[in-house]
Amino acid sequence: MSTSYRIEKDFLGEKQIPDDAYYGVQTQRGKDNFHITGIPMSTEPYFVKAFGYVKKAAAMANRDLGCIDAQVANAIIGACDRLIAGELRDQFVTDFIQGGAGTSTNMNANEVIANVALEALGHQKGEYQFVNPNDHVNFGQSTNDVYPTAFRLALILRLSSYMEALRKLQSSFFAKSKEFERVLKMGRTHLQDAVPMSLGQEFHGWGTTLGEEVERIAEVRQFLHEINLGATAIGTTVTAAPGYPELATKYLSELTDCKFILGGDLVEATSDTGAYVLLSGVLKRTSTKLTKICNDIRLLSSGPRCGFNEINLPQMQPGSSIMPGKVNPVIPEVVNQTSFLVIGLDLTVTLAASAGQLQLNVMEPVITYALFTSIATMENAVNSLRINCINGITANVEHARDLVLNSLGIITVLKPSLGYKQCAEIARECHQTGKSLHDVVVKERQLMTQAHWDEVFSFENLISPKFEK
Amino acid sequence: MSTSYRIEKDFLGEKQIPDDAYYGVQTQRGKDNFHITGIPMSTEPYFVKAFGYVKKAAAMANRDLGCIDAQVANAIIGACDRLIAGELRDQFVTDFIQGGAGTSTNMNANEVIANVALEALGHQKGEYQFVNPNDHVNFGQSTNDVYPTAFRLALILRLSSYMEALRKLQSSFFAKSKEFERVLKMGRTHLQDAVPMSLGQEFHGWGTTLGEEVERIAEVRQFLHEINLGATAIGTTVTAAPGYPELATKYLSELTDCKFILGGDLVEATSDTGAYVLLSGVLKRTSTKLTKICNDIRLLSSGPRCGFNEINLPQMQPGSSIMPGKVNPVIPEVVNQTSFLVIGLDLTVTLAASAGQLQLNVMEPVITYALFTSIATMENAVNSLRINCINGITANVEHARDLVLNSLGIITVLKPSLGYKQCAEIARECHQTGKSLHDVVVKERQLMTQAHWDEVFSFENLISPKFEK
Amino acid sequence: MSTSYRIEKDFLGEKQIPDDAYYGVQTQRGKDNFHITGIPMSTEPYFVKAFGYVKKAAAMANRDLGCIDAQVANAIIGACDRLIAGELRDQFVTDFIQGGAGTSTNMNANEVIANVALEALGHQKGEYQFVNPNDHVNFGQSTNDVYPTAFRLALILRLSSYMEALRKLQSSFFAKSKEFERVLKMGRTHLQDAVPMSLGQEFHGWGTTLGEEVERIAEVRQFLHEINLGATAIGTTVTAAPGYPELATKYLSELTDCKFILGGDLVEATSDTGAYVLLSGVLKRTSTKLTKICNDIRLLSSGPRCGFNEINLPQMQPGSSIMPGKVNPVIPEVVNQTSFLVIGLDLTVTLAASAGQLQLNVMEPVITYALFTSIATMENAVNSLRINCINGITANVEHARDLVLNSLGIITVLKPSLGYKQCAEIARECHQTGKSLHDVVVKERQLMTQAHWDEVFSFENLISPKFEK
Amino acid sequence: MSTSYRIEKDFLGEKQIPDDAYYGVQTQRGKDNFHITGIPMSTEPYFVKAFGYVKKAAAMANRDLGCIDAQVANAIIGACDRLIAGELRDQFVTDFIQGGAGTSTNMNANEVIANVALEALGHQKGEYQFVNPNDHVNFGQSTNDVYPTAFRLALILRLSSYMEALRKLQSSFFAKSKEFERVLKMGRTHLQDAVPMSLGQEFHGWGTTLGEEVERIAEVRQFLHEINLGATAIGTTVTAAPGYPELATKYLSELTDCKFILGGDLVEATSDTGAYVLLSGVLKRTSTKLTKICNDIRLLSSGPRCGFNEINLPQMQPGSSIMPGKVNPVIPEVVNQTSFLVIGLDLTVTLAASAGQLQLNVMEPVITYALFTSIATMENAVNSLRINCINGITANVEHARDLVLNSLGIITVLKPSLGYKQCAEIARECHQTGKSLHDVVVKERQLMTQAHWDEVFSFENLISPKFEK
Repeated sequence: MSTSYRIEKDFLGEKQIPDDAYYGVQTQRGKDNFHITGIPMSTEPYFVKAFGYVKKAAAMANRDLGCIDAQVANAIIGACDRLIAGELRDQFVTDFIQGGAGTSTNMNANEVIANVALEALGHQKGEYQFVNPNDHVNFGQSTNDVYPTAFRLALILRLSSYMEALRKLQSSFFAKSKEFERVLKMGRTHLQDAVPMSLGQEFHGWGTTLGEEVERIAEVRQFLHEINLGATAIGTTVTAAPGYPELATKYLSELTDCKFILGGDLVEATSDTGAYVLLSGVLKRTSTKLTKICNDIRLLSSGPRCGFNEINLPQMQPGSSIMPGKVNPVIPEVVNQTSFLVIGLDLTVTLAASAGQLQLNVMEPVITYALFTSIATMENAVNSLRINCINGITANVEHARDLVLNSLGIITVLKPSLGYKQCAEIARECHQTGKSLHDVVVKERQLMTQAHWDEVFSFENLISPKFEK
Repeated sequence: MSTSYRIEKDFLGEKQIPDDAYYGVQTQRGKDNFHITGIPMSTEPYFVKAFGYVKKAAAMANRDLGCIDAQVANAIIGACDRLIAGELRDQFVTDFIQGGAGTSTNMNANEVIANVALEALGHQKGEYQFVNPNDHVNFGQSTNDVYPTAFRLALILRLSSYMEALRKLQSSFFAKSKEFERVLKMGRTHLQDAVPMSLGQEFHGWGTTLGEEVERIAEVRQFLHEINLGATAIGTTVTAAPGYPELATKYLSELTDCKFILGGDLVEATSDTGAYVLLSGVLKRTSTKLTKICNDIRLLSSGPRCGFNEINLPQMQPGSSIMPGKVNPVIPEVVNQTSFLVIGLDLTVTLAASAGQLQLNVMEPVITYALFTSIATMENAVNSLRINCINGITANVEHARDLVLNSLGIITVLKPSLGYKQCAEIARECHQTGKSLHDVVVKERQLMTQAHWDEVFSFENLISPKFEK
Repeated sequence: MSTSYRIEKDFLGEKQIPDDAYYGVQTQRGKDNFHITGIPMSTEPYFVKAFGYVKKAAAMANRDLGCIDAQVANAIIGACDRLIAGELRDQFVTDFIQGGAGTSTNMNANEVIANVALEALGHQKGEYQFVNPNDHVNFGQSTNDVYPTAFRLALILRLSSYMEALRKLQSSFFAKSKEFERVLKMGRTHLQDAVPMSLGQEFHGWGTTLGEEVERIAEVRQFLHEINLGATAIGTTVTAAPGYPELATKYLSELTDCKFILGGDLVEATSDTGAYVLLSGVLKRTSTKLTKICNDIRLLSSGPRCGFNEINLPQMQPGSSIMPGKVNPVIPEVVNQTSFLVIGLDLTVTLAASAGQLQLNVMEPVITYALFTSIATMENAVNSLRINCINGITANVEHARDLVLNSLGIITVLKPSLGYKQCAEIARECHQTGKSLHDVVVKERQLMTQAHWDEVFSFENLISPKFEK
Repeated sequence: MSTSYRIEKDFLGEKQIPDDAYYGVQTQRGKDNFHITGIPMSTEPYFVKAFGYVKKAAAMANRDLGCIDAQVANAIIGACDRLIAGELRDQFVTDFIQGGAGTSTNMNANEVIANVALEALGHQKGEYQFVNPNDHVNFGQSTNDVYPTAFRLALILRLSSYMEALRKLQSSFFAKSKEFERVLKMGRTHLQDAVPMSLGQEFHGWGTTLGEEVERIAEVRQFLHEINLGATAIGTTVTAAPGYPELATKYLSELTDCKFILGGDLVEATSDTGAYVLLSGVLKRTSTKLTKICNDIRLLSSGPRCGFNEINLPQMQPGSSIMPGKVNPVIPEVVNQTSFLVIGLDLTVTLAASAGQLQLNVMEPVITYALFTSIATMENAVNSLRINCINGITANVEHARDLVLNSLGIITVLKPSLGYKQCAEIARECHQTGKSLHDVVVKERQLMTQAHWDEVFSFENLISPKFEK
């Protein structure tokens, strides 16, 4: 078995590395040191890809500035292209949550790229005198600028599909809104009967509110485009060649088609995690809205015989191991739970962001874990909500209408003409005696003619009430 | 106006103090430095009282140990008795949230006590050569042991009335449980119709769950009895006389009738805020339960015509400025909101507790603010819930029963005899056709005789189902 | 005493109202029902003022549309002007935290305005047949559109002074940055010595990062300008005259000089609390940044003899009741604690926002409490930080410089020329033997000439390192 | 490929099931419906094992009570034994986060057990007429009692190893405490120099505080022993045979050697998630303590030349990709981050617990995810902290002592004899002039003899100060 390892060393000593591994000694140390979640960074493909882009942009800039030999630079660039193409992902073995502010992950990238480049140049893995992870791949770079830049790029890429999922859900709500535009139902405030509306209006509101989320995410995503590439260790650009920060940023923008801009105060930019807090705050907001929407859907579909029962959800699975025939709103429930997870992870981001000290926030790795988990799980939940629930909702049209006509809340329509006080008395009488509004208003008190009543309480007028003065 | 001030000084310089103020220069500095909440510590009477007890116990111990002259000690003790009696509260002027880990509050107590003692001995306020806030009143003490000890005592006292409020609410739930024990209603899981139960069982569950809260609070309150009195600055008892920690603790226990014990590791005890985290965690748990209970009450009273409408809440106020006759569940709603406040403040406590550094947690003042606010607001909310809501709830007995008999969930009672699969098919048929269970089971499929049906679906059996094998 | 009360009634019955009170029966009910915080809404002057503006805009619109008699409308407008001018604030007596989604507060405004208008028209308080709180003052309105509109306006006004406080703090940081631009100091990452920088750069970073907060607050404040005035109960505009929503919004914009826009989907807008979640999220972000800054300041001023001791804070008060001469960083500490409060209250906002149901979020009152408390306390804290701390900070110039020159972190400057591996070995040798870098690099290993060394390690080059290839 | 599937059906229709799968149609639906985390419940071995125990106890009770044929019961028991032995874990394929309150997981267990039992009895998988997942395996059970019972048992088992990890860490702190008991160092409050102590006292405090965590966990773990087995759907025991709840609970206790007790109010017990909130609260508290401890360790090891530098941590990996020779406190950092995760997940638990409605809390699955993740990651972190950090810490004895002797904080030792005011003046003079305390006290002011000074400031007296009156 001894032939299946090579020996690598750093200033702390030697380590055995599996012969076929493209990572090296520092990755191995990180792998050995951090067993927390058991989830390696390779589970987020965009993160690996983003390191490919960042390291490529750096190599191009360093080549142009004469800091790295062109042949070496080109080999590095070639290796980066393989990462960008999705290859070698299994070589990224460090746990998402790690000490050292991402140094293990950055060195993982540096070592994999170096070894791939070495082989491309006809050398053996580990012959770092030709292509060195620190001196070549990481030239003019620090974990403290490279790791957050790659993280930001990965978030930008990852958010696109999440936003698309939200947009599709919005479209489903709007489609249902159209389908239900003639379904009369009771509006409720405080869970108490209020005034009539259409079921279409309710679905439209859900669509509208999610549309705002897409806009807010797009706005905060902009802040991820401000990067500190070239800031190096603490923002003073120490070890970076003059012009490197601007050039590397320019290359990164070109390669990714994202408009990156270099932070104006690199010292601030290097310790700041504010953009993540904002993003997480918006993800949390979306979760509060989805919580509300799913709660509403569960309320409206409560029953079938002892609840509101205005809508029916698609039946996804038998709802009970004990109660035959019961079917539960499992999809909204799982979205609720995912929301709780995202809100909890927002607190994790807040805590990590608060814990920055002096020239760096070393807690950024747990932020990567929290944000990637939040986005991925919520994207799954949103897609499931659309496909397995919203698209298949049907309305109990007659039941919903009957509830309205049998209610007292419709007295509000008469308030401008009869006055608050008289209306309140009528509603109270009906509530206490069980009488209908119609009987009291038209028959007993003769406050309106039947014809006027019919006009006021017509379908059209209840959905979109005319002003009665 | 110049005659209405006296001049006091400390090692940072001189300050004008209002002539009639019993506090002195250091309190004045604290008052000037901290304008955050605008809420002075005097708003929590137990906190001032607790300082009276702690300073008295300290003076008694120091007198016995010969550290303070008996006459001075007795004057201090007399001043403390006035604080214990509730006097001079308006002299405690420092903001709840303050820097310095409570030093301003401790010095506020020291100065007030010193000046009261001075006058009792025939001296003028400010003649600290006779009774000195630091050298006499604070002898052998540090803010770092005195402030947390007084805080703990104040919490112990304050929690008594909160626990009493919870106990009374529990009694109200149990009384209603008895009242509603013969009210048949549908049990619901996932907001979907499940199996029958009595309304009394539902109210009983709410009482049971709150009873557990009283027990948990009593348990965590025990941890508040471990104090670090005599630890002084960092737990090494520096400046305290030998035997003082034990003696002062003994006196404090005797004076307050609380069994205090001295921490076994005073260095640990001086920086530890774990007992507050536990207490806050239990306050939070109670809030999650009250959130659930109030949500349930709002659901069960939803309607009156388009909701569950199983119970009626007392009508506290017109519910709407626009919808005549509408009455809303305002009391459960305000309890919900208070719960949100308490849960938020629990996070504040968590953050403050996490921020301890080395030999002290300087963030303790915000913990006092959070915990006193949580307990006081929630006690108000719990009392209001009992008096203005629970005690006046009535049941819609017939409506609740009709819902059960009209439901499909009661098929579950037949599952042991007919099997899950057949029951599921029957339930599904009823749901799709609108038929009743009775028609399908007894008439169409003839799976049971009418007599057997009547027995199984009797009132008694639905409330407490017999096993059907 | 009987002459000092008047009797008012609503559909729930009669109530005694103090004769000199401008509020009426519904306010009295709200006052009696909600004793939670003990803090009446009058403590936030902008909230009362905002109700004045909103009710005035509504009255103007209703007058123009012929819904209210011009004389009555003008009396209402006159009453509103008095609220806008800051009068009658003591009449706003309802607790911030209340059930009913703010109905008590809205009715408080309606009743005060009605009674003031009544007196202006020569009537007695309570003669609501002439000016009615519901039918006139609240015409075409619901708590559900008026309360959030007033809240938003109050926030917009309140945020101005908070933003100004942040801007001034930023200026202080920038002024100190200039003052300290020639102070060399060690940059630290992971609390470990890293590479040199100037103290000015550090202060500049703090200023930069707070400037971003002002921008973010300005951005989210924009979202508060989208209102649902005229939506009435659930967004269907029931009881509002045609054209009223647009006209009332126009008047409100003109009166306040804020560009309000009417929500495009009023059903959504009426239950949505997303703008508050965003705002609270930004307030939280500012708190995480202030936490970090204050932690840094406390670290840099740690000592005086056993800590970093790079800067001195103004001495605000004796730091200890036991340790003579000790002075503590009390101002940063109180800012830390205020941050914990704001972060906790953000959770309260999140919970309340998640609890919306169907056509309304009835939890909005606790959001008003949380946001007004957060903004007010943090504004106090920020002003105190500037005045009592930042403006008086001095630097220990020599000590800070000596730390740099004695450190090993400056080896990084040589990395591009000597390579990572050799530098690491040198650093390790120095660390283990206690030797200085200079001795090893120049004397023992002769890797640089003395002249070159002097150039590289000159003051200028350490502050702003030239690239060494 | 068609031969590799079998067809199963439930009341919603047919599904293809892989021929070699022991799970059935309902598991397949759950698998298809819930793609949220991608983490199946099989990743927590104790959870699968716990289902084995619970289903076995149920089968034994149902056999004894004559509800299930003995041969079928014994086959079920045999299948359960295989789960208990750790077999078949890969058959548990449902995502941790799921709608339906765990029904998919319960049916997963029912189906796997049924099919294993079928094969044992010589039948084919899917021949449920012989052993039925619902009618036999799940007899007298509901997800609503079985799932929480299994979850509680799994937590009890899982917590044992976490408590052991904490205990070992405590032992390491105590061992280091002994090793460092003669290391004099400066105690610090507010990050400012306070009074001396030994490094051993500091480590002892960390050990003490973690010991309290083990005790608290043991206490809250007790509450997990109260179960609702036999409560079935909503706590009314519907479908369970008389005596079943007690008998199944007794068997479960015997099989697991855990003393389970049956809840006294099964309706309450079925919707209550309070025990999880308590447990999560304690896990959070441990995290706040570990946060504080790791922050302290990072502070004390800050430097090496520009920080406190009192202790050295084991060097785990090169600290920087750019700064040669830098080594960072990566292990405490990763523990800090894990703490942030646990605190965030506590919020998730709080939210889920608050969301219970009526007779059930359907959000329990996300609580399982949160708690298992918290315990597992924190156990990893705690073990790493002990092995990779604490056990290898060394002290910089001379540097720590020199800091003390050079400080001003030691003036406190003289306070009882010289008085607060004089001590404060002396300290202030030293601070402003840079003079040593010795020079001012002994030489200039001649307040003590040299001999007395030597006694007071001896090593022994500084570590454990004698009282100076």
